[in-house]
Amino acid sequence: MKAEIISVGTELLLGHTIDTDAAYLSQELAVIGFDVLHRCTVGDNRGRLAESLRQALGRSDLVVLIGGLGPTGDDLTKETAAEVCGKHLVMDEESRSRIESYFRGRECGESQWKQAMLPEGCHVLRNDFGTAPGCLFRSGGGCLVALLPGPPSECEPMVRHMLIPALRRYSDSVIASLMIRTFGIGEGAAAERTADLMQSENPTVAPYAKESEMFLRVTAKAANLQAAESMCRAMAEQVAARLGHCVYDVNTDGSSQSCLEQTVVRLLTERGLTVSFAESCTGGLLAKRLTDVPGASSVLHMSFVTYANEAKHQLLGVPWELLEQYGAVSEPVARAMAEGVRRVSGSSIGVGVTGIAGPDGGTPEKPVGLVYLAVCDGTHTWVRRMNAPARFKSRASIRFRAASTALDLVRRCVCGLPMEEEPV
Amino acid sequence: MKAEIISVGTELLLGHTIDTDAAYLSQELAVIGFDVLHRCTVGDNRGRLAESLRQALGRSDLVVLIGGLGPTGDDLTKETAAEVCGKHLVMDEESRSRIESYFRGRECGESQWKQAMLPEGCHVLRNDFGTAPGCLFRSGGGCLVALLPGPPSECEPMVRHMLIPALRRYSDSVIASLMIRTFGIGEGAAAERTADLMQSENPTVAPYAKESEMFLRVTAKAANLQAAESMCRAMAEQVAARLGHCVYDVNTDGSSQSCLEQTVVRLLTERGLTVSFAESCTGGLLAKRLTDVPGASSVLHMSFVTYANEAKHQLLGVPWELLEQYGAVSEPVARAMAEGVRRVSGSSIGVGVTGIAGPDGGTPEKPVGLVYLAVCDGTHTWVRRMNAPARFKSRASIRFRAASTALDLVRRCVCGLPMEEEPV
Repeated sequence: MKAEIISVGTELLLGHTIDTDAAYLSQELAVIGFDVLHRCTVGDNRGRLAESLRQALGRSDLVVLIGGLGPTGDDLTKETAAEVCGKHLVMDEESRSRIESYFRGRECGESQWKQAMLPEGCHVLRNDFGTAPGCLFRSGGGCLVALLPGPPSECEPMVRHMLIPALRRYSDSVIASLMIRTFGIGEGAAAERTADLMQSENPTVAPYAKESEMFLRVTAKAANLQAAESMCRAMAEQVAARLGHCVYDVNTDGSSQSCLEQTVVRLLTERGLTVSFAESCTGGLLAKRLTDVPGASSVLHMSFVTYANEAKHQLLGVPWELLEQYGAVSEPVARAMAEGVRRVSGSSIGVGVTGIAGPDGGTPEKPVGLVYLAVCDGTHTWVRRMNAPARFKSRASIRFRAASTALDLVRRCVCGLPMEEEPV
Repeated sequence: MKAEIISVGTELLLGHTIDTDAAYLSQELAVIGFDVLHRCTVGDNRGRLAESLRQALGRSDLVVLIGGLGPTGDDLTKETAAEVCGKHLVMDEESRSRIESYFRGRECGESQWKQAMLPEGCHVLRNDFGTAPGCLFRSGGGCLVALLPGPPSECEPMVRHMLIPALRRYSDSVIASLMIRTFGIGEGAAAERTADLMQSENPTVAPYAKESEMFLRVTAKAANLQAAESMCRAMAEQVAARLGHCVYDVNTDGSSQSCLEQTVVRLLTERGLTVSFAESCTGGLLAKRLTDVPGASSVLHMSFVTYANEAKHQLLGVPWELLEQYGAVSEPVARAMAEGVRRVSGSSIGVGVTGIAGPDGGTPEKPVGLVYLAVCDGTHTWVRRMNAPARFKSRASIRFRAASTALDLVRRCVCGLPMEEEPV
């Protein structure tokens, strides 16, 4: 099935907003058998939007318009799409009462009700995170048309929970997919170990490299969901076996974001363990990522950002002699931070991170990107030295990668896996 | 002048790569007077690329194609564009020798030389970060056509240093812009206070709401840069005067991301002050955002994540009686956290954040989204109660908004501004 995405919004054309919705939607559509062959962006301009939509209706089975469903005069996606597709807009009472309860008596402009006007006979896509409902309907010519709100916080959940389930019935096959999530193995090495499996046509195995992680998506097509899922599982097991300890999760979550933090929270929770961090160069990022996960409060009771040497000494008991002799960015200091934070916090596991995130502060001996990470479980303390390759040398990448490596070390520690870096 | 961007690459259509090049290019083109009215994405498919290019040539003054300049068989942008525009490809000797020196004796495939083949008579856009040069030429029909490499690390510098300078001579005016950044004022209130200014045609004033911030971009067109900049500054001053204390920065950075953290680091650095955080519901996000800014180490020496009550008591000295009597999410506890962290860290300013980020843990009296923020400068302690409106009720939004509010309170404290919420 051929699909097409039209993103609407002058802020997208001007480049003030980056279109992440369209990328997310493309991935999700591919999983249920809709191939996105065209994508375009138009401003808040009725004529150009109508022209793009007409062209799309003539060549695709599905056209998804994203954005322009707000209450203001700029927002004209719905009106334009209804006109081009030959539909009337009618008040959807359920959407109207949702908007009403959303404002709970606070004043809301008359224009707000415009959001509850939807094409007659459409399938309403409920918005659980905002006031603009989406919808799915057939144009006069028989093409499927979906309208979605622009803000990613509203669009992504609507795609996942409303649009994709509604579209499944139109797809000519049932597709299931699993994401194998790895950390610590390069794209090249992963491809080598799974070369024969990547040749498979159904299920397919496709690699995605992102930040310092590698995901492999297994996708199977079958007559029914059960068959597709079982084909997926069998292939995922083979793939995972080739990649060994680097696999930290296999799940149905299609997101291309890391979910190392979810894995770590789950593993710690299952075992009744707690963790505390002593962060220098990551400056709170590690704690932030762990506490992004709901329920993290049961595994993280306290955590420290110890940027200055005084902080490392005062809060964690890192001896001055170590700081003076080896410098703050060193194996002994990382070790003392991990052991110190474990002792002070009374946590099962202590983690220390110290490094040079840049852009300044590097020296020939200790360049920007050098990070020492230590994990202590009360019996052993392991230290990993990380030196980011050139393409990861931005401050943000160095910090993110260091936090990911620390999370992966906690995972390995909890599961009793080897703590050394995998051969790439 | 009308411009159009065509991004080429199957990985973009599949959503595996997010198109940041096009957004960046749009912003840069706007500044020199090229308005991007259409943007589309096509896969590595000769027919669809040719079709999109023909359509673009028919309606725009400038068409920029991004991606598909690599050495492999998939990369067919140059060949397709040359054919559609009626140009021959000829070997550019300077590009060829650059590629040669890039590989410095290492083996490189024959296909690599393909990258030095460029449309006859084109203006070569040198690539300082990779092997694929870009180019700028006129199609048979007179439309300007530019080809750029896809990787952002190559594309962005080429746009900035090669393409924009080359295009300036074709532009009929010079444009300057300034971004006025505010926190704590709604889009509606800001629009009301600046309604007359938003009517202005040159400079223009355009609002953007993002997370809990409001940006207003002032853009002026003039015969030369100096004139445009001075028109911008005059208008920005008027706009800023209407928005008062909510304005936290006015800068030329066109990014739509918050830069409250940069402002806070700058203000603290200028005054030689330090800050420490005691974070409960934000779980490290506040420290992470501050330390995203290079140089934050001079203003943040240590910081605490105190999720558990024991942590609040043990590390910050929050009295058990307060925790038991009022609960962890309360004004007295926020106050005690801010005062405690200031004392323990010896910082000039202490900040406490305690709230319910959800999705669980809310009660009718203390719903998800309720956050208390306290700031203590040693003389006074101010507490702000924040109750996120429904549309900000996701865990991520509540945390981000709480962190932004805390940063804004630090800004207000440092600058001696009113600490109360602005009337919206």
